[in-house]
Amino acid sequence: MGVDVELPIGRGVVLREAVAGDVRAIVHLLAADQLGASQDGIATQDDAQPYLRAFEAIDADPAHLLMVGVDGPDVIATMQLSFLPGMARHGARRAQIEAVRVREDHRNRGLGTAMITWAVDEARRRDCALVQLTTDKSRRDAHRFYERFGFHASHEGMKLTI
Amino acid sequence: MGVDVELPIGRGVVLREAVAGDVRAIVHLLAADQLGASQDGIATQDDAQPYLRAFEAIDADPAHLLMVGVDGPDVIATMQLSFLPGMARHGARRAQIEAVRVREDHRNRGLGTAMITWAVDEARRRDCALVQLTTDKSRRDAHRFYERFGFHASHEGMKLTI
Repeated sequence: MGVDVELPIGRGVVLREAVAGDVRAIVHLLAADQLGASQDGIATQDDAQPYLRAFEAIDADPAHLLMVGVDGPDVIATMQLSFLPGMARHGARRAQIEAVRVREDHRNRGLGTAMITWAVDEARRRDCALVQLTTDKSRRDAHRFYERFGFHASHEGMKLTI
Repeated sequence: MGVDVELPIGRGVVLREAVAGDVRAIVHLLAADQLGASQDGIATQDDAQPYLRAFEAIDADPAHLLMVGVDGPDVIATMQLSFLPGMARHGARRAQIEAVRVREDHRNRGLGTAMITWAVDEARRRDCALVQLTTDKSRRDAHRFYERFGFHASHEGMKLTI
């Protein structure tokens, strides 16, 4: 656990840190994503194990926050926020946003905006000098969304599956 | 300290984990970089403090490896390698490469290739499923360099200075 927040982010949705009981719902959000559909999912009990191990690794390390947006009993959004030390830019700490998902029937209601606003504020509170993320080049809507916060697509995001 | 390696990477250069005494030389490499020149540098003793604090944060956390390439007494290359837990891709751990620099008079001798080869191998040893990095869109040579390892510029790398 790294953050104590139960933040109302609009329309009855509350942003809080994920708990182990949220793991299946988080995976469901990842699997429902157009680009993640081929990769993620839990069909059997065995499938759940690597996700639970990943959750435990994230939960045990205060440098990583796995967040969920909950609407009553339903997990309808997720996001990971990580804090990374580095030497460049006068030893600046960076915040990195990964795996942002909002359930389709909750999009275009300001939840994504509220989540990213919180993430940038949390990065400031933790003395980060930079917030960074990568987003698939095909996600044009996402690029425009992040540009509205002032993010600039200054870099190529390069990935190597090993 | 997170890795015990003294790896010859060609022409008398050895790759090893950085120690506090390397910090000034690392900053010099960052400052010499065309895109980093306006941002980094140590002119006074006070300037060194944030870099030393960043070094201590990196050195204290086994999730981050700050590496240097040394030619006798000279630090002529640097690279940070970080290991990040995540939920996507079946809870895959990612390796992230940041702040790769090779001193100008040591370029085009295979040192960068040896460093990235080591980084990808270390990512495999630590059960990562993905290696990722971002590189400034103006660094066309760097894009071609990473593509030779199989990296694909599939993502936009978005940054927000705060």
